[in-house]
Amino acid sequence: MTIRVFVTGGTFDKEYDEIRGQLFFHDTHLPELLRQGRCALDLELRTLMMVDSLDMTDADRELIAQNCARCPETRIVVTHGTDTMVETARVLARAVPEKTIVLTGAMVPIAFGSSDGLFNLGSALSFAQVLPPGVYLAMNGRWFSWDDARKNKETGRFERLHGADG
Amino acid sequence: MTIRVFVTGGTFDKEYDEIRGQLFFHDTHLPELLRQGRCALDLELRTLMMVDSLDMTDADRELIAQNCARCPETRIVVTHGTDTMVETARVLARAVPEKTIVLTGAMVPIAFGSSDGLFNLGSALSFAQVLPPGVYLAMNGRWFSWDDARKNKETGRFERLHGADG
Amino acid sequence: MTIRVFVTGGTFDKEYDEIRGQLFFHDTHLPELLRQGRCALDLELRTLMMVDSLDMTDADRELIAQNCARCPETRIVVTHGTDTMVETARVLARAVPEKTIVLTGAMVPIAFGSSDGLFNLGSALSFAQVLPPGVYLAMNGRWFSWDDARKNKETGRFERLHGADG
Amino acid sequence: MTIRVFVTGGTFDKEYDEIRGQLFFHDTHLPELLRQGRCALDLELRTLMMVDSLDMTDADRELIAQNCARCPETRIVVTHGTDTMVETARVLARAVPEKTIVLTGAMVPIAFGSSDGLFNLGSALSFAQVLPPGVYLAMNGRWFSWDDARKNKETGRFERLHGADG
Repeated sequence: MTIRVFVTGGTFDKEYDEIRGQLFFHDTHLPELLRQGRCALDLELRTLMMVDSLDMTDADRELIAQNCARCPETRIVVTHGTDTMVETARVLARAVPEKTIVLTGAMVPIAFGSSDGLFNLGSALSFAQVLPPGVYLAMNGRWFSWDDARKNKETGRFERLHGADG
Repeated sequence: MTIRVFVTGGTFDKEYDEIRGQLFFHDTHLPELLRQGRCALDLELRTLMMVDSLDMTDADRELIAQNCARCPETRIVVTHGTDTMVETARVLARAVPEKTIVLTGAMVPIAFGSSDGLFNLGSALSFAQVLPPGVYLAMNGRWFSWDDARKNKETGRFERLHGADG
Repeated sequence: MTIRVFVTGGTFDKEYDEIRGQLFFHDTHLPELLRQGRCALDLELRTLMMVDSLDMTDADRELIAQNCARCPETRIVVTHGTDTMVETARVLARAVPEKTIVLTGAMVPIAFGSSDGLFNLGSALSFAQVLPPGVYLAMNGRWFSWDDARKNKETGRFERLHGADG
Repeated sequence: MTIRVFVTGGTFDKEYDEIRGQLFFHDTHLPELLRQGRCALDLELRTLMMVDSLDMTDADRELIAQNCARCPETRIVVTHGTDTMVETARVLARAVPEKTIVLTGAMVPIAFGSSDGLFNLGSALSFAQVLPPGVYLAMNGRWFSWDDARKNKETGRFERLHGADG
């Protein structure tokens, strides 16, 4: 089984520009994380864009959906900024109903020692292997159905809309 | 849903003794990893022992099995040295048939910058939430049934005994 | 011999605000760096301000100069943003001529795995112990007299104005 | 001014062998540390050996002394295990009296997140630039003359034999 991984940017891949003293996007850290995790899964990695999810447009989301629909793999992980992850999940749920798609991201860039990225990647790749077709978010060690998740802007944690989190 | 986590030691928790220049066991790094992963799962953590899995005895395995059987939780993660992880999995499969138990570990101690521990922990906690009752190993981003796994001592990777890895 | 360390902020101490996705100042990382360096020097640490050196005012520089002049120690390290480090050095050279003062900083925040901060701190504390009275910068493993240094904004490296760097 | 750096191994360069679960020597981490420190010094790096300093023989020390004597540079840093650093310093003091030689090492391998290696390297390179001819140790942010230093085996700290540490 091959898992497709689409990279779209997000905090995950932010780096520090030491000349300008700002965070910026350079290149994805996914291959380096997969090496660190000694990941032996059969993966097809492709970078679709490298953007802050607050800057993501409808056209960007359309592009992600098209790529998810057209690729031969039926199990997909999408790395994504956390701020609009739920929005993209909604678009994917409508456009690609028959595949298992797991979106994940990070609260702290990989380039920081204290990043949650490696944990989230391990989590997302695992959920992608065993969850039934559907669109999910993997954050904070948990999985969320696309229509039952929100990011709590104050705590930075993802929560269920109904039920156990209430 | 509460997930039970039993700590038994293994490479995961090895530290560097700077006075004697040797690796040793001090205390588990799990709480620190869970913080880094911004893990929001409801977990019950308990350290059962802190040993190299090459030194693990039958009595140790019996103790792990008893704890898995008696705890109220039905979804369990066990951190364990990789060298005899398969052996302990076999004991658990016989003694605790009706729960979802996922063993995981690390090839490189957490205390090293390049450890795979955070990735494996994210992976194990995720598999533990969604796999049906059974005993599994989570390593290298993959899951293995207890009776279909071995550690390749030369590559340090886990492999299936039959099928797709061949 | 006691060395005085004055903290003023700078890239050194920038942290990542995971809720807002921005870099900000929280608290100094100096004690943590000194612990990591197993530093056994007799140090007196004091935070004077916590600012980006581009935002540093004349009054801020005056405050640093007053503190350097009034403290009993004659060997002083000042952590400082790199962008206006030379400017502050000039103020100190005029106001505190009879002490050994070494300014240092970092191109990458300590909170990033790849920071130069620990290297620069080791360097600055060492120069402060052995250089004669004067105001110096310690960056890139080198020392610079206050009137013979500039930051090359393109490379991010410090250079001598005259002589060997030419 | 060119500084010569001789690498001899020591805790500094120990790595973790993930197949055998042991610490071992592979290759020096110096170039990587110098990059991280954004070091702009003119350095000539050479690995003379890669050994635990407890295993260092008289012949090894002789080799280090010969290399220090014969190289054209008059300012030299030697990376070395901490256990017998004082012994090698004594040999160098007799064999190479007219150069500035600074020995340094680490209590924790570079490969560990918490290593003191980067701090010590910044410190040693700085002392090597400004101390007069003589043989010194740079550890814990301090410098020691070769005939006034010992490693306290219980604390892991270096101390002066006479005077201020008493």
